Amino acid sequence: MNRRDVLKGAVAGAFATGGGWPASAATAPSAAHTVERWGVFEVRLDGPAGGNPFLDVDLHAEFRLGNRAVRVRGFCDGEGVYRIRCMPDELGDWSYRTSSNAPQLDGRTGSFQCVAPAEDNHGPVMVRDTWHFCHADGTPYHPFGTTCYAWVHQTQDLQQQTLATLKDTGFNKIRMCIFPKSYAYNRNEPPFYPFPRDASGKNDFSRFNPEFFRHIEGRIQDLGKLGIEADLILFHPYDRWGYATMPAEVNDRYLRYVVARFAAFRNVWWSLANEYDFMHALSTPDWLRFGRIVSEEDAAHHLRSIHYGSTMYDYTEPWVTHASLQTTAFDKALEWRAAWRKPVIYDECQYEGNIPQRWGNLSGDEMARRFWRCIVAGCYATHGETYLNPEEVLWWSKGGVLHGSSPKPIAFLRRIVEEIAPRGLTGEDSNYLSAVSAKGDMLWFLDEHQPAEYKFPLPAGQSFRAEVIDPMAMTVTRLPDACSGPTQLKLPGKPRQAVLFRKLS
Amino acid sequence: MNRRDVLKGAVAGAFATGGGWPASAATAPSAAHTVERWGVFEVRLDGPAGGNPFLDVDLHAEFRLGNRAVRVRGFCDGEGVYRIRCMPDELGDWSYRTSSNAPQLDGRTGSFQCVAPAEDNHGPVMVRDTWHFCHADGTPYHPFGTTCYAWVHQTQDLQQQTLATLKDTGFNKIRMCIFPKSYAYNRNEPPFYPFPRDASGKNDFSRFNPEFFRHIEGRIQDLGKLGIEADLILFHPYDRWGYATMPAEVNDRYLRYVVARFAAFRNVWWSLANEYDFMHALSTPDWLRFGRIVSEEDAAHHLRSIHYGSTMYDYTEPWVTHASLQTTAFDKALEWRAAWRKPVIYDECQYEGNIPQRWGNLSGDEMARRFWRCIVAGCYATHGETYLNPEEVLWWSKGGVLHGSSPKPIAFLRRIVEEIAPRGLTGEDSNYLSAVSAKGDMLWFLDEHQPAEYKFPLPAGQSFRAEVIDPMAMTVTRLPDACSGPTQLKLPGKPRQAVLFRKLS
Repeated sequence: MNRRDVLKGAVAGAFATGGGWPASAATAPSAAHTVERWGVFEVRLDGPAGGNPFLDVDLHAEFRLGNRAVRVRGFCDGEGVYRIRCMPDELGDWSYRTSSNAPQLDGRTGSFQCVAPAEDNHGPVMVRDTWHFCHADGTPYHPFGTTCYAWVHQTQDLQQQTLATLKDTGFNKIRMCIFPKSYAYNRNEPPFYPFPRDASGKNDFSRFNPEFFRHIEGRIQDLGKLGIEADLILFHPYDRWGYATMPAEVNDRYLRYVVARFAAFRNVWWSLANEYDFMHALSTPDWLRFGRIVSEEDAAHHLRSIHYGSTMYDYTEPWVTHASLQTTAFDKALEWRAAWRKPVIYDECQYEGNIPQRWGNLSGDEMARRFWRCIVAGCYATHGETYLNPEEVLWWSKGGVLHGSSPKPIAFLRRIVEEIAPRGLTGEDSNYLSAVSAKGDMLWFLDEHQPAEYKFPLPAGQSFRAEVIDPMAMTVTRLPDACSGPTQLKLPGKPRQAVLFRKLS
Repeated sequence: MNRRDVLKGAVAGAFATGGGWPASAATAPSAAHTVERWGVFEVRLDGPAGGNPFLDVDLHAEFRLGNRAVRVRGFCDGEGVYRIRCMPDELGDWSYRTSSNAPQLDGRTGSFQCVAPAEDNHGPVMVRDTWHFCHADGTPYHPFGTTCYAWVHQTQDLQQQTLATLKDTGFNKIRMCIFPKSYAYNRNEPPFYPFPRDASGKNDFSRFNPEFFRHIEGRIQDLGKLGIEADLILFHPYDRWGYATMPAEVNDRYLRYVVARFAAFRNVWWSLANEYDFMHALSTPDWLRFGRIVSEEDAAHHLRSIHYGSTMYDYTEPWVTHASLQTTAFDKALEWRAAWRKPVIYDECQYEGNIPQRWGNLSGDEMARRFWRCIVAGCYATHGETYLNPEEVLWWSKGGVLHGSSPKPIAFLRRIVEEIAPRGLTGEDSNYLSAVSAKGDMLWFLDEHQPAEYKFPLPAGQSFRAEVIDPMAMTVTRLPDACSGPTQLKLPGKPRQAVLFRKLS
């Protein structure tokens, strides 16, 4: 084995702080490399440093486990360094062999053992039970996301502050852009650019800037350590550098490069775009091609979707794993769920804040209420926060600290859902908003209604214990008596209350 | 002139308490009868008392003013008494001549002078400017209605209490049923029945019970004295007496009788039905026929609509003067307004209260908020209240007293609209909900949004003075500076605020 074949096994891989996720340290090669399941195995190779390695060099590896073969693309990390990354998803003895048009990189072989994952490594998130999610090891996952579009393009201090904030919230997904963002409250230059630029700001789209992508993958791993999924937005329209209007072959090469670099990180989701319909240089055939490229290139089969501004994307397309909505049409949830037969996430149902823009000035109560609306429909929602401050550091764009009142009630709801419905809730079209778990627990959300009493149509022949929940005050009042069949309960007589009926076994 | 020709002129006719609206007192005949414009002129005749006067006797009168002739139907008021009523709508010397198949009632003639109305008599309400209303003399009328479906079918004491309550509210229209109502919280028998009944409760649909209708017309006049329009619901499905399933010829005769009795009262509106689509014995051809009968029989051309439960009526039908909706789809208001080109009233957008039924348990804030939503769309709304109480006297059904918090904020909104927009508001499809008056005043309602500041897109070249309104606290904060063109204002940063820009002349 050549000294230049440096293998790196992600040995701990746990999402908890301090767990694995080595960022760049290369371990010394050894006869028996081990990588935990859903960790990152990386082949590091030295190759051609001259010419244009991003255009000239083609590099792949075929990873084998028994009769199974997984082909992944390698990428140039600059200065003659090439990497091929793989996220092994099965235990056992894997081997690989590279192929390349660069003789130096061609025909390299090696092997590693995929071992049981660390306790906190549950693998990537995937769809389960049509409308819900779980980790690859079966651990339930309910997306309770937030939005920090450009947090990786801020100062190091601010990025660290964002991570520290995230550590203390209940959010387990973050929507974030790969490309820097140029938009209201976010006009600053990013620390890195994805492509080399000359003094006049002209992009060299024929090359990538590895430092830019290396930086982002560090942040992806930081999120992984916090147990947070990185919902990576691959294109977006808020651009002044030219990234929203690149030639088709640059778009495609960019996608292949991003997937080659990031797909081995288990906490990655692909969002083809934010507000795709506001990107006037791109049209439906482009998005279909992008969907195909990402699907084909990503050997780990991460979740894939696309987010719209006004014109809803056709979420029935086969490459789409889940819907990523921008709407406040909560009444449509059951209908869409039934039509698409995919998980539905209201990724943008407006934000808590006080900016003039209509989408960014909800009260905390209203933001949390919208999560409840989505959850009792058997769908999911995503948070954002846009409070004005003198520094113009708005969470939704730059991260930083949270000022709002909704994160705690949202985390409160997450705990309820995780406890009662590990396999998700099914929305029911009843007189009031209600949902049922696989176990048979029933959750009602009365929204703006304030009945002084209500006869809940519980099924007969089953026994329940009721809890009256104040979603905003985050209180739970357990009622003493078991109940069965239609059950009349006195209620607080104020809006936005919930009632949970726990099924007694 | 025969002694039996007793003419009655409604001499005062003012809606203010103590004003005219004589109920039954017949004045002595004289050579020069005067009736105020939009008052009630009544010909009282003695006729056949035997047989079945409701089936056998046909009676009409033709009222003439110059070349104009108005034909109206008379009706039997029981015990051989027949009446023909007319609401003269033009000043001048009117004459009439009766026609009947009963010789006693045929060919009777007389005359009266129509004189200027009393100060508070503005005539019936009609449509103006496509989407709005006014009284016949041009006085603005903005419907701010409430709902007491069965108030006239309660005890005398309760009816008087309802009238006393209405006197102190800002409501100027009431939705009320002609037929008694059998529904939750309203199972009591009415004091009167519209048709004679035998001991077993079997109706004699071939006759009317004049006492029943005489009672209701007393209540219509009581409302008139309070300045309240009686939005009379002619059919409804909440029935245990058989009134919802009468034969077609009985339905038609009932309509002709009701119009003959009530149409001369200027504060009458016709609502063909409440929740017409829940009346399974009737179908579209019936409603079209009913619309035609009421249109043809009503010489005063009162407003006409029909209210649905689930399936919207086709409000483009020519006989419909305005839409009477049951929905919470406030977002559709501008679209419907544009499509129908008629006034749109959200007559049932749920009620303030705390009953279990989803439609009857809004908070007061939410009820008032819904009025604002309708008003800034250039539409109107109707109130209802359903608070549980030991006596089961719920305002929406029986009247009585009001317990809720929405009537005051609704009256506050009414005062604003009446002041700034005598000819109604026009909803604008802007970033926030806003409306403009004919004079150019602009009213914004920010609903659930809470921007800390906002740049209002005022037109340039015009000068305004701003008022920040808290619709629920009913406070108005006048800002000192005149403004013009796009104007940035600091706002309270809490939900449900409004801003009024008064155009300076």
